[in-house]
Amino acid sequence: MSVPKTQKAVIFETNGGPLMYKDIPVPVPKPNEILINVKYSGVCHTDLHAWKGDWPLATKLPLVGGHEGAGVVVAKGSNVTNFEIGDLAGNKWLNGSCMGCEYCQQGAEPNCPDADLSGYTHDGSFQQYATADAVQAAKIPKGTDLAGVAPILCAGVTVYKALKTAELRPGQWVAISGAGGGLGSLAVQYAVAMGLRVLGIDGGDEKASLVKSLGGEAFVDFTKTKDVVAEIQKITNGGPHGVINVSVSPAAISQSCQYVRTLGKVVLVGLPADAVCESPVFEHVVKSIQIRGSYVGNRQDTAEAIDFFTRGLVKSPIKIVGLSELAEVYKLMEKGAIVGRYVLDTSK
Amino acid sequence: MSVPKTQKAVIFETNGGPLMYKDIPVPVPKPNEILINVKYSGVCHTDLHAWKGDWPLATKLPLVGGHEGAGVVVAKGSNVTNFEIGDLAGNKWLNGSCMGCEYCQQGAEPNCPDADLSGYTHDGSFQQYATADAVQAAKIPKGTDLAGVAPILCAGVTVYKALKTAELRPGQWVAISGAGGGLGSLAVQYAVAMGLRVLGIDGGDEKASLVKSLGGEAFVDFTKTKDVVAEIQKITNGGPHGVINVSVSPAAISQSCQYVRTLGKVVLVGLPADAVCESPVFEHVVKSIQIRGSYVGNRQDTAEAIDFFTRGLVKSPIKIVGLSELAEVYKLMEKGAIVGRYVLDTSK
Amino acid sequence: MSVPKTQKAVIFETNGGPLMYKDIPVPVPKPNEILINVKYSGVCHTDLHAWKGDWPLATKLPLVGGHEGAGVVVAKGSNVTNFEIGDLAGNKWLNGSCMGCEYCQQGAEPNCPDADLSGYTHDGSFQQYATADAVQAAKIPKGTDLAGVAPILCAGVTVYKALKTAELRPGQWVAISGAGGGLGSLAVQYAVAMGLRVLGIDGGDEKASLVKSLGGEAFVDFTKTKDVVAEIQKITNGGPHGVINVSVSPAAISQSCQYVRTLGKVVLVGLPADAVCESPVFEHVVKSIQIRGSYVGNRQDTAEAIDFFTRGLVKSPIKIVGLSELAEVYKLMEKGAIVGRYVLDTSK
Amino acid sequence: MSVPKTQKAVIFETNGGPLMYKDIPVPVPKPNEILINVKYSGVCHTDLHAWKGDWPLATKLPLVGGHEGAGVVVAKGSNVTNFEIGDLAGNKWLNGSCMGCEYCQQGAEPNCPDADLSGYTHDGSFQQYATADAVQAAKIPKGTDLAGVAPILCAGVTVYKALKTAELRPGQWVAISGAGGGLGSLAVQYAVAMGLRVLGIDGGDEKASLVKSLGGEAFVDFTKTKDVVAEIQKITNGGPHGVINVSVSPAAISQSCQYVRTLGKVVLVGLPADAVCESPVFEHVVKSIQIRGSYVGNRQDTAEAIDFFTRGLVKSPIKIVGLSELAEVYKLMEKGAIVGRYVLDTSK
Repeated sequence: MSVPKTQKAVIFETNGGPLMYKDIPVPVPKPNEILINVKYSGVCHTDLHAWKGDWPLATKLPLVGGHEGAGVVVAKGSNVTNFEIGDLAGNKWLNGSCMGCEYCQQGAEPNCPDADLSGYTHDGSFQQYATADAVQAAKIPKGTDLAGVAPILCAGVTVYKALKTAELRPGQWVAISGAGGGLGSLAVQYAVAMGLRVLGIDGGDEKASLVKSLGGEAFVDFTKTKDVVAEIQKITNGGPHGVINVSVSPAAISQSCQYVRTLGKVVLVGLPADAVCESPVFEHVVKSIQIRGSYVGNRQDTAEAIDFFTRGLVKSPIKIVGLSELAEVYKLMEKGAIVGRYVLDTSK
Repeated sequence: MSVPKTQKAVIFETNGGPLMYKDIPVPVPKPNEILINVKYSGVCHTDLHAWKGDWPLATKLPLVGGHEGAGVVVAKGSNVTNFEIGDLAGNKWLNGSCMGCEYCQQGAEPNCPDADLSGYTHDGSFQQYATADAVQAAKIPKGTDLAGVAPILCAGVTVYKALKTAELRPGQWVAISGAGGGLGSLAVQYAVAMGLRVLGIDGGDEKASLVKSLGGEAFVDFTKTKDVVAEIQKITNGGPHGVINVSVSPAAISQSCQYVRTLGKVVLVGLPADAVCESPVFEHVVKSIQIRGSYVGNRQDTAEAIDFFTRGLVKSPIKIVGLSELAEVYKLMEKGAIVGRYVLDTSK
Repeated sequence: MSVPKTQKAVIFETNGGPLMYKDIPVPVPKPNEILINVKYSGVCHTDLHAWKGDWPLATKLPLVGGHEGAGVVVAKGSNVTNFEIGDLAGNKWLNGSCMGCEYCQQGAEPNCPDADLSGYTHDGSFQQYATADAVQAAKIPKGTDLAGVAPILCAGVTVYKALKTAELRPGQWVAISGAGGGLGSLAVQYAVAMGLRVLGIDGGDEKASLVKSLGGEAFVDFTKTKDVVAEIQKITNGGPHGVINVSVSPAAISQSCQYVRTLGKVVLVGLPADAVCESPVFEHVVKSIQIRGSYVGNRQDTAEAIDFFTRGLVKSPIKIVGLSELAEVYKLMEKGAIVGRYVLDTSK
Repeated sequence: MSVPKTQKAVIFETNGGPLMYKDIPVPVPKPNEILINVKYSGVCHTDLHAWKGDWPLATKLPLVGGHEGAGVVVAKGSNVTNFEIGDLAGNKWLNGSCMGCEYCQQGAEPNCPDADLSGYTHDGSFQQYATADAVQAAKIPKGTDLAGVAPILCAGVTVYKALKTAELRPGQWVAISGAGGGLGSLAVQYAVAMGLRVLGIDGGDEKASLVKSLGGEAFVDFTKTKDVVAEIQKITNGGPHGVINVSVSPAAISQSCQYVRTLGKVVLVGLPADAVCESPVFEHVVKSIQIRGSYVGNRQDTAEAIDFFTRGLVKSPIKIVGLSELAEVYKLMEKGAIVGRYVLDTSK
C-alpha cells in the first residue's frame, strides 16, 4: 500500500490558538507502532479541552487532536506481529502505556502513570495518517462501518466499562442518569443488550421518547417529577441495583447515593471539574452501598464494546462533516448545541 | 437442664431512665428460638445509644440491652433442629430477620428491613437467660473461652466483615484508620491472619506499640506526621490497596479517599451521626477507587470470625466486671475513658 | 379461607406400588410452615425415580410425590412472617434445610446434609393441599399464570442456576448440549435473556427449528455433523466460553471438555447414574478450563428464575392433564414419549 | 556497562544430542527486548523435556535451554521503557506473547496461541547473556538473592497461581497433594502465607517433618493410611475447601475429587502425559465441586510470587552447581534422585 509523504490535518501550535487545516508530513511508525489511514474520527468533549488547554495536564504542542479514529493499517513497525497491512484499526484515548507497572501488569493500562494519550500527548486522529501503539490500538473487524464505529472507540467503551464496573446481573435494574445524551443513549443500548432493566433519567419529552425507543423500560423526567428519589424507588421496587452517572451534575450524583438500592452500586464516570460526591456515612454503611469510579476501558473492554456494535446491538446517532470543519464543530460544542456525535470525514 | 423461673437482669423502662439490676422472669423460647444461659456479655457503644434512645430508630421498652452474649443453650423451641441442649451459643446484634425478603434470600440478613435486634428491639444479653432466634444465633465451639469470645460476636465480626468487603489479596497493604482502639486492634489482628500487610493509623506512642505488637508492619501517628497522605503513600509504595475506617472522624474518612492506592477500596464501617464522606469526582474516576459501606456480618461471617478466635489468631483485651456494674461502665464509656472492651459476668 | 379436612391426592405405599388417586387428610402446617392449596404441579423425571425407588436415597413411605407445585397460601404456622394468606406460593425440590450448617449459612441450602425434599422425604405437590417450609417456599407474584410457572420451580431454576454457575458475560458464547429438550429449551431462553450468544446442540431438524425460534444463534446437529468439535469451534470462533450439559450422555459431556474455549467453563447439571466425566489432564491445564458441577438453585436463584418468567422472557411448553392421570404420565415418561412438560391440574 | 561479544553457554543441536558447554555469541536485543546478564538459573523438569524433545511441541534448534534465569539488565532495545540498565530481571517460561489476541487482551498471556517460550522456542537462561521480551521479563527488586529467587520464576509462580486459581479465603483448608516435593514445599509455604490451613499429602516421615516445619497443620501419609479419603475428611472436618494437585499421579488426582469438600475446588497444575482426570458426574453435581486447570502465572502473578519471596515468606531449598555441570544434573533428574532444586551458577 503506497503511503504519501504529506497529508491533511488539523493542527494547533498553542492551546486555544488557531486550528489550522493544512498539509503536514505523514508520521513514520516506530518499531512498535502501526500507521493507520484514518477514514473517520469522532469528536469528543475531551478534544475541546485539549485544544483549550484548560485541564491540569499539559498537552503536547503543536498538537493534532482526536482519539476516536477508525481506519486501515497501511504500514507497521518491525516488532508488530498482531496487525497486518489492510486490517482495520482504531486510535483510542489510551495510545500506549509502559506495560511494566503494576497497573499495566493487571490489565489496567488506562491507570498507568505513564499513559500516552491520543490527541493529547500523542498526535491523534484529526489527520489522514496517524500512528498508534500496536498493543493498544483497537482491532476492528473487516466489513465494519468505519464512520459508525468511531464514537464507540471512546464514548462506547467508556459507558460499557462503567456498566461492567457496576457488576450487575441480567434482570437487575440499572438507572442511567443523563440517559438522553450522547453517552447516555449508548449506555441505555449496552445495558439492554446486557439483559438489564433500564430506567433512564433526563429532562424533556424528546429524551423520554429516545430512551424508550432504545429499549429503556422506564423514564423519570427530573424536570417534572416532584420527588425523584421516591419515584425511582417506586418504579424499581426499592431502587436500582446500579446507577451509571453519565450526567456530571454534582447534585444528581449525590442524589444517586440516595435512591440506589440497598447493597447497590453507584458508578461515577463523567469528569466534572471540581465536583464532589457527597455520601452520608451512616446511610452508606447501613445500606452497604458502594461508590465506584470507572475510567476508560482497557483492550479487553474495547474489543467487547466493538463486538456489541458489529453485532448491531448498539449504534450512535452521528452527523458526518469534513475534517476541515472541526473548528465549527468546536463552536457548536461550546454552545452546547450538539445532539448526538459529530464524526469527521478526513477526506474532506 | 433445669431452668429457673426468675433471673437477674439489668432493665430500664424509659430511654435514659434508671438502669435497674433486679429479678425478672426468665423468658420462654418460641418454637424457633433457643434459650441461652448467658455467662458473659460484652458492652458495646451501641448499647449506650439504645439506653439513651438517641438514634432515629425507637427501642423496645422496657428493654434489656446487650448483644454480645456468650453462654449455653438450656432450652429450645419445637422447631429448632440446629442446636442441642448444652451447645454453646451467642446472642448477636441481628437476633432474627424475616428470611423471606430479597436481602435475606441472598444471605444479607443484616440488611433486612424487618431485622430484629438484640438489646434494641428484642431483650438482649444483659440478663442471665436470653432467647435468640436459632437461625441467627452464633454457634460457639465447645471449649471456647466464653468471656473472651463475647466481644468477637459484634466487634470482631464487624471488622472481619469490613476486611472481607475490601476484597484484598494476601500480600496487599491495608490501612486501619483508628488502629489502636478496641475495634482497630481487632482489625489489625484479623488483617494479619488474612495475610495482609498492615499499616496502622492512630495517635500516640502507646498505640504505635500496640499496633506493632499485634503484627502491624507500619504505623503512622497522625499527631506527629506533617503530611499524612504523603507518608502513607511512601510507606506503602503508592498507597494501601484497602482502607478500613474504624475511626469515625469525617476528616480522616475523606482523607482516606486521597491516600488510597489507584484502584483501591475505602471501606466505611463506623457509624458517626451526621458525618458525610466527601470524594472529589475527578480523582475518584481517574484513580478508579471505590468507597464501600460495610454493615455487620451475616451468619457465615460470624462463624468465620469466631473460627479465627478459637484458633488463637485474634484476641480482644477485655476487663471483666459484674452485670450489676453496667451503669458504671456506661459512665466510663460516656467519658471516653475505656480502653479495650468491658465484659459483664452475669453471675455477679 | 376455609380449608377442608380431606382432599384428593396421588399416593403410593411402596416403591413401585400402585399409584392411588384417592381422598387423604389435609396436612396441618407446623409453626414454620405454610399450607399451599396447590392448583397445578409439574411432573419431573425425579418424581418417577421417587416412585420407583431406584435411587440410593430412600424415600418417605407412604409418599405423595411432586415438587413443582404452584398455588395459594391458605394457612400458616405461628412463626411464619414472610407469607400472608392469599399469597401465591410454590413447592420446590428443596422443601427445607437445617439453616444451621456451613452450607445453609452461605446460602447453599440445597447442599445441606439434612435437606428435606418435596415429593421425596416430605409429601409433595401431587395433592390439593401441601405443606411447605416458609423459608424455602417459592414466592410467586400475584397475577402469575400458575400452570405456566409450575415447571419453572424445578426445571427453570435448575438451568438458570447452571447458567449462573458458568459465570459468563453478556456477549459471550454458550453451548447448550441437549438444547432441544425440555430443560434445554428453557436453558436457551434464559441464556438469550442474559445477553449470551447461544449455540444449541441436539439431533434433528425439528429441534434445530425450535432452538432457532427461541433465539439460538447457531445449531449443531450431532446426527449430521462429521466433526462436532471442529464445527462448534468454527462457529464460535474458538469454542464457546461456557457449556451447559443438559444432555446426560457421558460421551457428549466428555466431548464438551474438548470443544470448550481456552479458559472456558463446562457445567455439569444433569444426573446420569454411573456416568463419569473424563478430562485429559494435560489439555485441562494448558487450556486452563474448569468443570463445574451445578445442583439445584437456592432461594435467590428461584426468585430470579421466576422473575424472568413473569417478565415474559421464558416459557415452558406445557400440556395440562388431571392429577388423576399421573400414572399415565409416568407410563409415557418411561417410554421417552414426552415432549415438553406435563402439568397436573389438581382439580381433576 | 560493557557487554562481551562471546560468552559461555550450554547448547545442543539435536534433541537428545550432546549438551555442549562452550563459547557462543552474545545475542543482541531486538527493539522490544532487554539483555540479561544471567547470574543464576534454576533447572526444571521441562528443560529435560526440551532437550529430549519428547513433547508434542517442537523446540527451536540449536537450542540454549533454561527458563528460571535471574540476573542484571546490561542492554536494552530502543522501545524498552520499563527497564533501566542495572535493574535486576528474570527470564521466565513465557518469554513473550502476541499481546493482541483475546487471551493477551485479558492478561492471560500464557494461554496465547503464539506464546514464545524461554529455553524452548527462544534461547533461554543456560547462558551468561540472554535476551528477554521486556513486557514479560520478570522484575526483581534490587538487593534480592539471585540464586534463591531463580526457582521462584517458574516453580514458585506456578504453585502460587494454582493457589490463586482455587479462590480460597484465609482460614479455609487446602490440601497439597505431593506436599513434600520441590513444587509441593513451595506450595505449602505460599498457602501458609496466604492465611490458609494446610494439609499435606505425601509419603514418608521425612516429608511429614518437612511439611510440618514449613507451617503445614496436618499431614496424611498415603503409604500408611488405610482410607485416605476418610482420614482427610476427618482432619478437615468435611474435606478441604481446595486441593492443589502438584502430584501427577492419575489415581491421586481422581481421588482428590472424592475427598474435596462440598462446593470445593480441585486444581490441576502438574502436566502428566496421558493422564485423565475422572470424576463421577452424579457426585460432581450433587457436591457442586469444580475441577480447575491452572497453567503458569502471568506478569501480575509473577510480581506477587516474587514479592512473597523478597519478604522472606517462602524459600526454595536449592543446591548450586556450575553451568558446566548441567548434563550431570539431567542425569540425576532422570534417575529421580533430586531433592529440592538445582540452580546453576553461570560463572562456572
